[in-house]
Amino acid sequence: MEKQISKAVISRLPRYYRYLGELIEDGVERISSNELSQRMHVTASQIRQDLNNFGGFGQQGYGYNVRHLYTEIAKILGIDRQHSVIIIGAGNLGQAIANYANFEKRGFVIKGMFDINPRLIGLVVRGIEIRGIEELETFIKENNVQIAALTIPKTKAPEIAERVIRAGVKGIWNFAHVDLAVPDDVVVENVHLSESLMRLCYRVCSLQDRESGEEKDS
Amino acid sequence: MEKQISKAVISRLPRYYRYLGELIEDGVERISSNELSQRMHVTASQIRQDLNNFGGFGQQGYGYNVRHLYTEIAKILGIDRQHSVIIIGAGNLGQAIANYANFEKRGFVIKGMFDINPRLIGLVVRGIEIRGIEELETFIKENNVQIAALTIPKTKAPEIAERVIRAGVKGIWNFAHVDLAVPDDVVVENVHLSESLMRLCYRVCSLQDRESGEEKDS
Repeated sequence: MEKQISKAVISRLPRYYRYLGELIEDGVERISSNELSQRMHVTASQIRQDLNNFGGFGQQGYGYNVRHLYTEIAKILGIDRQHSVIIIGAGNLGQAIANYANFEKRGFVIKGMFDINPRLIGLVVRGIEIRGIEELETFIKENNVQIAALTIPKTKAPEIAERVIRAGVKGIWNFAHVDLAVPDDVVVENVHLSESLMRLCYRVCSLQDRESGEEKDS
Repeated sequence: MEKQISKAVISRLPRYYRYLGELIEDGVERISSNELSQRMHVTASQIRQDLNNFGGFGQQGYGYNVRHLYTEIAKILGIDRQHSVIIIGAGNLGQAIANYANFEKRGFVIKGMFDINPRLIGLVVRGIEIRGIEELETFIKENNVQIAALTIPKTKAPEIAERVIRAGVKGIWNFAHVDLAVPDDVVVENVHLSESLMRLCYRVCSLQDRESGEEKDS
């Protein structure tokens, strides 16, 4: 029986994973929570608390075994296994994702791309053929596709989400600016770029307001 | 003197803004917190609490004035003003952002794109010319650019971030898989796609583990 890990810890794991991967690339075998703390700009106690969730890989005065921790986090995240992914919407954003080789290193194998635009259908991006949307259901079943990235307009996304879910997809990586209603056994991870840009804008404007306020005060 | 609004509320504002924008498109002038609650799958009391931060636009039994609320939220987010944006990295991801017309509706005007690839320099994407990276500093100063999107590899991002900050950029929309160190008067909003995909993966795997556990139990 595995221990329940808090959502907050889980959401931080990919970042630990990235740093550990970089340490491996740099040939570092062991690292203390203090050193990791300096690199990641997180307190050492936060790091110890987070990583103790996984049975305390660290040893006092000895540090973490980088590769072991990297492997354990991969297991927890489920990226030690392969996952079949399709991309629906073969425009710039879909192609950007298809071209991102690092995903494959993390076990995400892009099996197919789909579009409705006849000018795109038949083209090949990094060895992946762009197919017509009518092949969607058959392809998902035949390739045991688990994850679908939706890089399509928001008006099309709910209908396409329904179709992929009915065909067996369990995770939707949603780039469309719409909230999708899905059954309990399906998960959605949203990447709403315009919301991210608005948050950035808010923070930039707040800084400027604060600075102009300080100038007035002085 | 404006009241301090919590980070959590701010982070929810772009979503309210999106829904209010859709209501305006649908010709809806007033909406109660209960109706908005049903649409957004958020409790009505959460909505009232959040929106009361802005001076209580709602009236008992009367509902919110959709356009007024939309305008007020835009002011708070700072998207009632125009912001000059540049995109550094004119690959698929950079072009996807340049092609996204909705950003301009929200006050983000993409003034320029930059790349080091000679095959891309001189091309025009939605009326925006792709320029060589050597023009970066001059362009930022002449166009009063506030925000730079970095859609470049992580190895190049820290150096380019330093250059744009020195030239006057105050907000970095960072798509590179690296954490950028910036001065106090600059903000970074990260979009780390591979971390998002790993979180999705974790949630898909957890669901599957739970289901296979339930099968074993039964």
